[in-house]
Amino acid sequence: MINTLFLPELREMLKSQNVDELREFCEAIHPAATADFMSGLTSHEAWQVLNHTSPSTRAEIFHYFDRDRQFEILRDQDRESVVELVANMAPDDRVDLLNELKDDFAAELVDLLPPEDRLETLRLSAYPEDTAGAVMTPDLVKLPERLTVTEALAELQRLAGEVETIYYIYLVDDSDHLRGVLSTRDLISSLSNPEKQLNEIMETEPITVDVYDDQEDVARKVAQYDLLAIPVVDEQHRMLGIITHDDIIDVVREEATEDAQRIGGVAPLESGYLQTPIWRLFWNRGIWLLPLFFGALLTAGAIQNYEFQLDQWGFLIWFLPLIISSGGNSGNQSATLVITALTSGNIRLSDWLTVMIREIWMGLMLGTLLGLVFLPVGFTVACDAMIVVPITLVLVVLCGTIVGSVLPLVFQRLGQDPALMSNPFVAGIVDIVGIIVYVNVAIMVCPAPT
Amino acid sequence: MINTLFLPELREMLKSQNVDELREFCEAIHPAATADFMSGLTSHEAWQVLNHTSPSTRAEIFHYFDRDRQFEILRDQDRESVVELVANMAPDDRVDLLNELKDDFAAELVDLLPPEDRLETLRLSAYPEDTAGAVMTPDLVKLPERLTVTEALAELQRLAGEVETIYYIYLVDDSDHLRGVLSTRDLISSLSNPEKQLNEIMETEPITVDVYDDQEDVARKVAQYDLLAIPVVDEQHRMLGIITHDDIIDVVREEATEDAQRIGGVAPLESGYLQTPIWRLFWNRGIWLLPLFFGALLTAGAIQNYEFQLDQWGFLIWFLPLIISSGGNSGNQSATLVITALTSGNIRLSDWLTVMIREIWMGLMLGTLLGLVFLPVGFTVACDAMIVVPITLVLVVLCGTIVGSVLPLVFQRLGQDPALMSNPFVAGIVDIVGIIVYVNVAIMVCPAPT
Repeated sequence: MINTLFLPELREMLKSQNVDELREFCEAIHPAATADFMSGLTSHEAWQVLNHTSPSTRAEIFHYFDRDRQFEILRDQDRESVVELVANMAPDDRVDLLNELKDDFAAELVDLLPPEDRLETLRLSAYPEDTAGAVMTPDLVKLPERLTVTEALAELQRLAGEVETIYYIYLVDDSDHLRGVLSTRDLISSLSNPEKQLNEIMETEPITVDVYDDQEDVARKVAQYDLLAIPVVDEQHRMLGIITHDDIIDVVREEATEDAQRIGGVAPLESGYLQTPIWRLFWNRGIWLLPLFFGALLTAGAIQNYEFQLDQWGFLIWFLPLIISSGGNSGNQSATLVITALTSGNIRLSDWLTVMIREIWMGLMLGTLLGLVFLPVGFTVACDAMIVVPITLVLVVLCGTIVGSVLPLVFQRLGQDPALMSNPFVAGIVDIVGIIVYVNVAIMVCPAPT
Repeated sequence: MINTLFLPELREMLKSQNVDELREFCEAIHPAATADFMSGLTSHEAWQVLNHTSPSTRAEIFHYFDRDRQFEILRDQDRESVVELVANMAPDDRVDLLNELKDDFAAELVDLLPPEDRLETLRLSAYPEDTAGAVMTPDLVKLPERLTVTEALAELQRLAGEVETIYYIYLVDDSDHLRGVLSTRDLISSLSNPEKQLNEIMETEPITVDVYDDQEDVARKVAQYDLLAIPVVDEQHRMLGIITHDDIIDVVREEATEDAQRIGGVAPLESGYLQTPIWRLFWNRGIWLLPLFFGALLTAGAIQNYEFQLDQWGFLIWFLPLIISSGGNSGNQSATLVITALTSGNIRLSDWLTVMIREIWMGLMLGTLLGLVFLPVGFTVACDAMIVVPITLVLVVLCGTIVGSVLPLVFQRLGQDPALMSNPFVAGIVDIVGIIVYVNVAIMVCPAPT
C-alpha cells in the first residue's frame, strides 16, 4: 500500500528545489518512515530527494525501500553515486542486496568499493546462505579487557556513530579471541567505580553461536536468552561478528512463513507474494501440486481395482471422498502440530515415542468422534454403512495421525526441514491406505448382496 | 528435552548443602542457562537450589522454568516465599503467569502482593489479551526533558538495576505526556556536550503504539522500524509502558505458529504441543475436523444425486478423488499465500484486485499444467476422459485459487483473523463445486453411451 500523506508537499519541494525542507524531510523522522512517505514517488524522484541529505542518511533510508525500487535506483543512477551509496550501507544489508543482484553487476559494484569495504563484502558473502555468517555484521564494539570503566565509556562515545549496536561490549585478547561480554547497562551501573577494569565486571561465559550455525538455531538461542545481539565466533572462539535483534525478528518471521507455506503445500517464496514473479509462483506451486496430483492418480488405480466391490455395495462410493478427506485432514493436522513444535523447539527428535503415543490416542479419539457423528447419517442410508464407515473412519484417521506425525520426524532425522514435502507424502499414503482399508472392511463386515 | 550435564553435581551440592557452590551456580551464568541445567531436578529440588540466591535472581531464573514447573512451585511452597517470588518478577511476566493460574489462587496471590505491585498487576491485567497493554511493562526510563546529558547519565546509572531496558530514555512532561525519545546511544554520543539539555537532542516524533493496538500490529511496527522497544501510549499520548524486543520475538513466533496451525487445520494451541493436555488437543483438532467432515458429507449427497451420470460413464468415478483433491490443494495454496502475505504485511486489503488477477491467472496456468499431465493417463482410459478430466481440472483449480484467495481477504475485511476457518470453507466449497462441474462437463462433452 502506498502512503500518500506527504506526496503533494514532496513534489512541490522538488519542483521548487527547496533544499532546506528536503533535507529536513530526510533527517527529521525515522528513516523507515521517510522511506514509507516516499513510496508514491517514482524511483527517479525518490533519488532526487535522497540527494539532499548526507551519504550515510541516504544509505539508511535506501535500506528501507523495497527491493524493486532499490534495483531501479542502482540501475538508473551513475556508477559513482551508486558505489558511494552501497559503500555506506551496513555490511550485512549490503551483502543481502548484492546477493540478489545479477552476478556480473554485483561483481562490478564490489570491484568499485573502497578496499576495506570490498574485502569485508567478499568475506561476508562467502558464508553459505541461512548460516550465522551470512546474517552477521562485523560492526561491533570490541575492546581489550584491561580497559577501565571510564576508558570504555570514552570508546563507546567514539564508536557510537559507526557500529550496529553499542549495547554490548565484547572483550577480546590480542588475537581477537572472545574473553567476555559486558552490557552497556552493566557498564553504566559501574560508573560509580570508574577505575574498575572491564575484566572484573564482564560476564566470562558469554552465549555465542558458531559462524556456520543455522540461522534458525541462532534465532532460537537469542529468543531463549532474551538477547539484544549474539556474538558469532569461529572454531577458535575468535570474534567474527554479531547478529542483532532486528535481524533475528526477520529470521523468525522468514522461517515461520516458510513453514506455514510448506504446510499449505507451496514451496517457500524467496520474496513477498506481490514481488514474486508469476512464473516463479507457478513453479513454487506446481512442484508441490504435481506430486500431490500423482498421489491422487494412484487413488484412480485403486478405485479401478476395486470396481467390483464398489459396485456391489452402492453406498461405498458415496462416502469415498469423505473417507479420503478425513484421513488427509487428520494427517495434515498431526504433521502441522509436529512441524510447528519442532520449529519452536517445543519437541525434539528424542521425544518421538511420546509424540507417537499421543498421536495414536488422538487418532483413536478423533476417528471415534467422526464415526459417532456419522451414525445418524449411516442410519438413513443402510445398516451396512452404519458399521463399515465408522470402523473405516477410526482406522483411516489413525493412519493419518501416525503417518502425519512420523514423517516430519523422519525428515528432521535425515537432516532435512521437517516441513519439506511432509504434506504430499502424508496425503499420498493416507489416500491409498484409506481406499484399501475401506473396501476391505466392507468385504469383512458386509454379507455379499444377493 | 532434559539437560543432564550438571545434574549429578547439582544433586551432590544439594546433599552436602554446599552453600557457596549453589550460589555460584545460580549467579555465574545466564539465568536461562541456569534454568535449563535444572530441568532434570524435581520441582522441590529446583526450589531448594533457588533458595541459595537473592530474591531477584531467584525470580529471574524462575521466569525461565516451563509453566508446569512454575505451577508446581507456586502450589507446593509456602505462601510467603511464593509472594516474594511473584513480587520480584517483571510486571509483564507476572501478569502472564497470574492469567494462567486458577482465578481464586491468582486473586489470593495478588491480594498478598505489596500495595504498589498489586496496583500495577491489577492495572496491567485489565487490558484485553493480545493488545499492546497486555504485553507492555511499566518499568522504563522516564525523564523530564530539561535534564542535561550529565544528569541523564546519572539517572540511568541509578535506574539500571530496576527497569526493563535503559537503552531508550522517554522524555515526558509533568502529566506524563510523551514529548520525545532519546536512545542511550545518542546520549553517549553527546557526552562531549555534557551541559546540553535532552530536549535539544531528543527525537520529537517518536514511533508509538496505542495501548489497545493488536500485538500483531505492534510487532509489525517494531520490525519495520528496527526498534529495541516501542512506547505504549493512551489516547492523550500519555506514557503507559514499553514493549521490548524480546517480547516482540515471542509475539512474532506465537502469531506465526498460530497461522501455521490454522493453515494446517488446527485451532491454535495456547501452549506447546507436549504441554497441551490431550483433551484440549482433541478439542482443538475436533472443532476443525468436524466442519471439514460435514463439508465432505455434502459430497456424499452430490455423488448420490449424480449416481445416474456416474454410472453412465464409468471412468468418472475413478478420477473423482483426483478432481476433488486438485481443487482443494490449489485452494489451500492460495489461502496459504494470501494469509502469510497479510500477516507479514506484504499485502493489504486494498491490494485485493491485484491478488484476484494473479490468482485467476495462476488457476488457469496450474489447471492447464495438471490437465496436460493427465493427457497420457486419459489416453489409456477413454477418449472422453481425455477431454472431460482436463477441462474439469482447469475449472476446478481456477475455482480453488479464487475461493482460496478471496476467503482470507473476506475474513480480514470482517475484522477476523484471515486464517480463521478459511481452510474448512475453502475445502467445503471447492469439493462440492468440483463434483458439480465434473459431472456437468461430462454431460456437455460426452455423447450418451449406447
